[in-house]
Amino acid sequence: MEFAVKPYKKEFAYSYVLGAFPTIELLTKRPETVEEVYVHSSFTDREHVEQLCKSHGIPVRENDRTIAKLSDKENVFVIGVFRKFTDKLSATEPHLMLVNPSNMGNAGTILRTCLAFGIHDIAIITPAIDPFNPKTIRASMGAIFSLRIQCFESFEEYRKQYASAAPERQLYSFMLTAEEQLTVETCPKPELYTLIFGNEATGLPAEYADYANAIKIPQSPEVDSLNLTIAVGIGAFLFRKS
Amino acid sequence: MEFAVKPYKKEFAYSYVLGAFPTIELLTKRPETVEEVYVHSSFTDREHVEQLCKSHGIPVRENDRTIAKLSDKENVFVIGVFRKFTDKLSATEPHLMLVNPSNMGNAGTILRTCLAFGIHDIAIITPAIDPFNPKTIRASMGAIFSLRIQCFESFEEYRKQYASAAPERQLYSFMLTAEEQLTVETCPKPELYTLIFGNEATGLPAEYADYANAIKIPQSPEVDSLNLTIAVGIGAFLFRKS
Repeated sequence: MEFAVKPYKKEFAYSYVLGAFPTIELLTKRPETVEEVYVHSSFTDREHVEQLCKSHGIPVRENDRTIAKLSDKENVFVIGVFRKFTDKLSATEPHLMLVNPSNMGNAGTILRTCLAFGIHDIAIITPAIDPFNPKTIRASMGAIFSLRIQCFESFEEYRKQYASAAPERQLYSFMLTAEEQLTVETCPKPELYTLIFGNEATGLPAEYADYANAIKIPQSPEVDSLNLTIAVGIGAFLFRKS
Repeated sequence: MEFAVKPYKKEFAYSYVLGAFPTIELLTKRPETVEEVYVHSSFTDREHVEQLCKSHGIPVRENDRTIAKLSDKENVFVIGVFRKFTDKLSATEPHLMLVNPSNMGNAGTILRTCLAFGIHDIAIITPAIDPFNPKTIRASMGAIFSLRIQCFESFEEYRKQYASAAPERQLYSFMLTAEEQLTVETCPKPELYTLIFGNEATGLPAEYADYANAIKIPQSPEVDSLNLTIAVGIGAFLFRKS
């Protein structure tokens, strides 16, 4: 009997990814979580998807109705359904922390950007968007399946697990109120670091200036702030080891 | 008699900006282009907008129906209507060139990012999104009113006007196929430069490797490409004079 997939809700134990490219990412990076894959009757380029499914014993179902029901007007030919997973971050790798992110598209773009610049560990301080929402996953282009993501109820909870025990980890809060400017010439190059970014509209709460080294990406007074995704892109690029 | 504003179409001689903040940008930076400003009856914080309009002789109209008609379900309290303007780029300032950009939200974010990093001159190679579409303007948060934007039908047309006559202008094509990697350590620092970026889906056509110095933002093979807005953000940040 088929598993009856319903349009996503946060409380579900499963989610799904829309599109062939990110479904292949799912099948490659997290095959053990996949329940089933749906393909549209007009999808012709099936070989890669079917091969990956076969090698992991994952059922492939042709079902246009299910695809129409889940894909929300978009042009989608493949959907991968998977059980949500939980991760612990790596204690010995750089982290990106998002404090109360509120836009799923931005969050997805940020996940993809982190992967591009070698950050595989993402800490999210709640309340926040749901990283498993299909919109976040789609905006990440499937990057989410190559990352470890862990949610925390507070900065304190994160600190206990990852910062207190590793004094060599350097923490940086990106804040417009910071005095220290992040430039190409002055960017610190610690071995182990956590880059911390706030909400799209409100930035980081003031106390994050005490939790970490407060730094600022210098920008013209002609603009009130950078878009969050751009700020993360520049931060992740500058701190990476080249 | 009131000017009857209709929902935007590309062929119109006017456009409009949705929202109080970007309307204030319009009134401050391009007051000579403003036809009229609409405010919603429930908009309370009117003083700044009304003062700016008064000092430039611009009519302010309270008209909830017009606002509802133009604002497309969004929560909007102020709309500024302006005549479209055309610009020539500054021959002595850095340029950002977008070749066939196709997403209005991305284009708006890019305009805002350029302004943040001191690039005031934007060349667009058509076919391209309409920079005056209210969606682009809104995504730019009004940054468009602080920039000079000029459209060109071809790279050749741009080159004749701005590159041939100024051999000191260094041109850089951002391409995934480039050999030269752009890093913090190796970023060139020319006085006068043009940064060239391609379409969101297809990147730059191959011939741009001949038109300019081809460079690449190094990124993990785990990702097929960076989001265009992120690539522009990193490029504009690295090339700016700090």
